Amino acid sequence: MVKKPDWMQPKGPEWTRLSQRLVYENPWIRITDHDATAPTGKPAQYGVVGFKSVAIAILPLHEDGSVTLIGQHRFVSGAYSWEIPEGGGPLDVDPMIAAKRELAEEAGLAGRDWRRVLDVELSNSVTDERGVGFLALDLYPAAAPPDDTELLQIARAPFREALNQALAGNMPDMLTVAMLLRAYHMAQEGELPRELTRAMLD
Amino acid sequence: MVKKPDWMQPKGPEWTRLSQRLVYENPWIRITDHDATAPTGKPAQYGVVGFKSVAIAILPLHEDGSVTLIGQHRFVSGAYSWEIPEGGGPLDVDPMIAAKRELAEEAGLAGRDWRRVLDVELSNSVTDERGVGFLALDLYPAAAPPDDTELLQIARAPFREALNQALAGNMPDMLTVAMLLRAYHMAQEGELPRELTRAMLD
Repeated sequence: MVKKPDWMQPKGPEWTRLSQRLVYENPWIRITDHDATAPTGKPAQYGVVGFKSVAIAILPLHEDGSVTLIGQHRFVSGAYSWEIPEGGGPLDVDPMIAAKRELAEEAGLAGRDWRRVLDVELSNSVTDERGVGFLALDLYPAAAPPDDTELLQIARAPFREALNQALAGNMPDMLTVAMLLRAYHMAQEGELPRELTRAMLD
Repeated sequence: MVKKPDWMQPKGPEWTRLSQRLVYENPWIRITDHDATAPTGKPAQYGVVGFKSVAIAILPLHEDGSVTLIGQHRFVSGAYSWEIPEGGGPLDVDPMIAAKRELAEEAGLAGRDWRRVLDVELSNSVTDERGVGFLALDLYPAAAPPDDTELLQIARAPFREALNQALAGNMPDMLTVAMLLRAYHMAQEGELPRELTRAMLD
């Protein structure tokens, strides 16, 4: 835990929750409407999208400085989307376990060196969805081949090409963009093996 | 537009939307349930959380290498949260306009140099929420003081301190983490004024 500086001290009144009712539920989300009192003291209504899983994202970084990416057609956008391996993990299970399963199922990969490098709230004014990001290093083929019923494509791209495509808006998935930027940061700050850093950034 | 490499070519069948019905709506979101055919050919149901606004995030970078951050108690997490200035923008308005308004209202700042540097899908398996991130440079006090009915705190922190707190999980808001990493990337890649880069990274 990194110590918080003084300026981060909370100040002022908080939200008060008065009552809540379930207004919609499906296997992935649960919407609740709340009567509340705002920090200003005024009565307020607040709708919360509760997620039944945590978003898990894994950036598989190969020794040659390339990354494995997954392609699929997305229902919500109606567009084809390239992303790092991702999936939903149960809320009550260590995200690392879900991450290892996702990497094997989607990319057919396992890793000897795992690092948890991102812990975020994805859209904290409306949803309670958490995201956890892992780097997977020292990769080798997983025992079980990838599950092909999801009709995923698998590709390998040089790190800089993936990062540039993500920043150009051609891979707009948030956790993909964030994890590529996080790996860039770690490489620049000397937090990755020197040979790998050279292969990624050169 | 950065040209897409060959490996990004879409492949395989797509989702087909058959019918939809509205199951919940409030001023911020709209939930629809869809009957669909999955890319595998199997019938499927899909619930979509539609957002009525785009998430706008602004990283105000001062010439001395510090950033302005906003503190507030968040309803959903029930925790105090430090973030870069953020807000919801109308879907049919240029996000830059919303960004300038947010920066003035929340931080009391205006900028002479604006850069749109992040375009993302925040949680694309369930929601259609888009996020747009801006760097605001060459800052000066806005004509109107910040609106204080939201009970926001305003703080200034050195860039590296803000980035380290974000990566340590002490500022978990996704767009805050991503925009700090994006600014780090731009500084390292020589995309920001040299004096500013030095002030940020030294």
